[in-house]
Formats: sequence, C-alpha cells, structure tokens
Amino acid sequence: MTGDARPSRSGRRPGTSGTRDAILAAARERFAQTGFDKTSIRAVAADAGVDPALVHHYFGTKQQLFAAVVELPIDPEIVLRQVDATPLDRIGETIVRAVVGLWDSPAGAGAVALVRSLVAGGDVSLVRDFLLSVILERVRRRIATDNDDGRLRVALAASQIVGVVITRKIVQLQPVTDLPLDRVVAAVGPTVQRYLTGDLDAGSAHHPEP
Amino acid sequence: MTGDARPSRSGRRPGTSGTRDAILAAARERFAQTGFDKTSIRAVAADAGVDPALVHHYFGTKQQLFAAVVELPIDPEIVLRQVDATPLDRIGETIVRAVVGLWDSPAGAGAVALVRSLVAGGDVSLVRDFLLSVILERVRRRIATDNDDGRLRVALAASQIVGVVITRKIVQLQPVTDLPLDRVVAAVGPTVQRYLTGDLDAGSAHHPEP
Repeated sequence: MTGDARPSRSGRRPGTSGTRDAILAAARERFAQTGFDKTSIRAVAADAGVDPALVHHYFGTKQQLFAAVVELPIDPEIVLRQVDATPLDRIGETIVRAVVGLWDSPAGAGAVALVRSLVAGGDVSLVRDFLLSVILERVRRRIATDNDDGRLRVALAASQIVGVVITRKIVQLQPVTDLPLDRVVAAVGPTVQRYLTGDLDAGSAHHPEP
Repeated sequence: MTGDARPSRSGRRPGTSGTRDAILAAARERFAQTGFDKTSIRAVAADAGVDPALVHHYFGTKQQLFAAVVELPIDPEIVLRQVDATPLDRIGETIVRAVVGLWDSPAGAGAVALVRSLVAGGDVSLVRDFLLSVILERVRRRIATDNDDGRLRVALAASQIVGVVITRKIVQLQPVTDLPLDRVVAAVGPTVQRYLTGDLDAGSAHHPEP
C-alpha cells in the first residue's frame, strides 16, 4: 500500500479518488474478461498496483466491488438476507415484496437507468453473470433437491420479477404501475412461489408430450 | 388521389416511395399527438395530402399502419386471431405459445431490436398505448365480468410475457433461453391463465388487508 493512496477518514486527501478510480477500472476489466466467479480481489489489486486490503477498504466484499463497477444503485445483500430468513413456503411473496419494494424506493430510479442502458446494448453478460452466480445462486441452493438443481426454477422466477418491474417502472402500464405493493405481492407472489417450489409442468396436461 | 401518386403493380413507379414516406410521417405525427384510438386514417391522409384510399392501399388497416410506423416486425393480428379462437380455460397457454413462438421465429430478431430501442429511451408511450388499446383490449373484452373490468388481469399477464421474452431473448438467461417452446408453455401458461381467469388475491391470505 503506498502512503499516498491510503485514504483519510474524510476521503478527500489528494490521490484518493485516483486510486479508487484505478481499482474500479481494473475491476471492470477483470470482471468483463473472466466473469464474476473467477475474478479475485487479489488480481484486481495487482492490476491496479495496490494492496488487496485497500480494495476491501474502499469497496468491501467482491460482491460490493461488483455493485460499484456496474453502478448498482441497490445493495443486493439487503434482499438476499430477507430471502435467507424466510421459510421456503413463503419465499415467493418475500422475494416479490423485497425486490418490488426496493424498485419503489428512491434507489429505484437509479435501477431504472441501469436497466435502460443495459437493455439498450450495454454489457448484459456481466450483469447476467452476477445475477446467476450471486443472486439466483443463493436462492437456487435453498430449493435444489436430488432430482432438480433448481436452475430453471430460479430463472423462471427471475422472468416474472423482471417482467413486473419493467411493466411497473419502465413501460408504466396501468393499473400495475399504481397498484399498492401489497396487491402486487398477492398477485405475483404465488407465481414466483410456484416457479420455485411448485409443479412446473402443470400446464402440459393438455398436450401430449413430444 | 393524384395520378402521380397512384402506385403501379411493381411499386417502382417514381413518386411511390415519396408518397409512402409522406403517409408514414403524417401517421407518426398523428399517433404520437393523439394516440392510437383517436387517430383516423382520414386525418392521416389529409395531413399527407392524399386520398384515404391510398393509405389503405399502402398499409391496410389502422392497426397495420401503426405497425409500420413503429416498425413492428410482427403482425399482432396473427396472435390475436389465435387467442380469439381459443376457449377461455386454455387462453393462458395459447397466448404464451403464440407470443413466445413469434419471438422465436425469424421475425423475433426485429422485435428484439425494437424493444432495445424502446427501453433505451424511445417513445414507450406510443407502444404502450397500442398495447393497451389494441392487444390487451382484445383479450380484456373476453375476460371482463360485471365485477371486474379485467384491466389488472391483462396487465399482469403482459408483465409475465414481457418478462419471459426479455429473459429468453435479450438477457439470455439459461436455461430459459434454450428451453423448448413446449416446456415454456407448460411452465408459464398456468401463470398467464391464473392472471386472466384465476384468483388474484390468493397470496394475500398470509397478510391482513391494509
């Protein structure tokens, strides 16, 4: 760690923002090249020419460093802790309440901007990778059984949550946009619950299997 | 109708593409200003300085004119006819099969481009208006009852369909992207069916009503 780069408590000491930017630039490059899983704080620190402790000091965990790189306006850990603390048979409504509630909060405006730029042609692969290896993975581990790794289940749950957030916040389709959160949870929670723990092939009874 | 603007069978006669473009420009302006419902072919023709018959000749119905204006790569009438012909208790799977099937078809690539530009900051209001007054309205009329106008139901169904299409085609989240259409229909059809004809407040049993 260079003396010059060590931040003061106020964060205003000269050199601080340059070091922070160098770490962010190195992390952006690493995450893009090797994905979230295979990127280490140590490698990012080496690329930026700083001590790994400084990366932790500025950004916290690897997950938080990633959130800073893609300018996530929301700390996903807030949602993940709520999900971890919920019994499996209530997990659908908990996820919908936590995610839609966050998008309804002031931080949601930044999330809307992020989604717009991603869908417009930003680096979707990086966020998809993070979604898969951090957010969905944490839910997947809870629902996986010997016969079902849960990958399809969490991806289907994500499809409904992405859809309700885009409909409510970006397309602003009424009456979904103005629907009180409790009613969103009542309507959409059972969908997410079924995707995560219910019968996924219920609809195929009408069709002969190919 | 001016003799100059009347198109030949080959569509290559001089003046044809200019007239077509003038109609498109007038339609774009009208639709943006007064919305889909209140725009008439007659008004578009007047703005473009041509006979209404010429607008019909080039573009067909008002719905088809709109599709040309927003460069819809898919004729929504194809989906709507399939939905019209389906009994209400099968409508969920029919809609999912028709819409996701269309996005899987070669025309889907154009649809992906349209969604990207819309979400990035294009004129969402015009497409939302069309979605509400043409596509969702046609389904809404079939499911409306004396006690329920069906507006929330079709918007929720749209949220799941938007979500599955974005997850499958734009974010490309596995295993949803490679899931055979039949399994998408089996998994997502019951969700759309419940939104359109089922109990929307099933999830609220756990929560006291506010």
